Amino acid sequence: MSGPAHANYVLPFFFLFSAMGAADASSQCSDNKGSPLVRNISDIPQSNFGRGGLAHITIAGALSYGMKEVELWLQTFAPGTRTPIHRHSCEEVFVVLKGRGTLLLGSSSFKNPGKPQELAIYSNSTFSIPMNDPHQVWNTDENEDLQMLVVISRPPIKVFIYDDWSMPHTAAKLKFPYYWDEECFYEPKDEL
Amino acid sequence: MSGPAHANYVLPFFFLFSAMGAADASSQCSDNKGSPLVRNISDIPQSNFGRGGLAHITIAGALSYGMKEVELWLQTFAPGTRTPIHRHSCEEVFVVLKGRGTLLLGSSSFKNPGKPQELAIYSNSTFSIPMNDPHQVWNTDENEDLQMLVVISRPPIKVFIYDDWSMPHTAAKLKFPYYWDEECFYEPKDEL
Repeated sequence: MSGPAHANYVLPFFFLFSAMGAADASSQCSDNKGSPLVRNISDIPQSNFGRGGLAHITIAGALSYGMKEVELWLQTFAPGTRTPIHRHSCEEVFVVLKGRGTLLLGSSSFKNPGKPQELAIYSNSTFSIPMNDPHQVWNTDENEDLQMLVVISRPPIKVFIYDDWSMPHTAAKLKFPYYWDEECFYEPKDEL
Repeated sequence: MSGPAHANYVLPFFFLFSAMGAADASSQCSDNKGSPLVRNISDIPQSNFGRGGLAHITIAGALSYGMKEVELWLQTFAPGTRTPIHRHSCEEVFVVLKGRGTLLLGSSSFKNPGKPQELAIYSNSTFSIPMNDPHQVWNTDENEDLQMLVVISRPPIKVFIYDDWSMPHTAAKLKFPYYWDEECFYEPKDEL
């Protein structure tokens, strides 16, 4: 048996967070070419980006760190909080680190998302969202935070937001750049 | 203050592993269209794929789960074990969950990788590998496993392996499909 000794054991993993707001999120927009290749996740700025109950950290980002093909986030949702109902045409994989909640998943096959599937998500679970399927992640627990690692492809993300599950796909509103990309995103200026 | 209550706390994360070899890795090759969208990581098969001291789990894979743009692995290296010296033309992001070690990083700018940089990696750190730069991850600890989440783009991965740091880039040997993709990879047959 040549595997590591851990195979049958419970493995602890600790994310040590700096205090909320201790680092300014806009400092992520700087040119990172000179920053250390190995970074302590605790030192990466986190913010709620105006969304109550959210703590978002871009661990590796397109706008903040020059990634071109993948982006990695650490997100924490306070009890009762949730993402908007939204879709995007990129791949997305979640790993639930802590807590529990519900994944609501609509369809892209009809005129609107329709009544969503409700799927339990829990610590140590993983799921990926089919491309363009409208979805919402909800911390349905009354006490515990829901913390997840989120991987997306083709950053920066282009998100279409729905008011509700009956809204036609064509009426969903593009939010770009997305909340955590706003401070780092610069539109090219028209050259007249 | 509208953030989750966790912000100043230490957050535990537990990966519960099934016993080594309890699930057959080849079962990952089946058509996953009928498999549950939310999966317990503990139920995903792990194997060392013939490499002593390695435990590899493909959390979300191209060949095993139909991912097209990103792939996510959980890898554990026993004390003293390491990856080969290798390069690939995709993006790769690591999150160290447990343990410590050394990232050895060569250059793609010269004829061969040259003397590599040696960078300390540690629990709760993250790093990404510049595309095509030869690198090696080494668990230099004598006692503890090194456990990492690994994200790659453009799966399945195409790896070029070096015998040592002085080997010319052009001599590095393509290993494709890679160890954990071998069982699920089917070459299209020539139609004569």
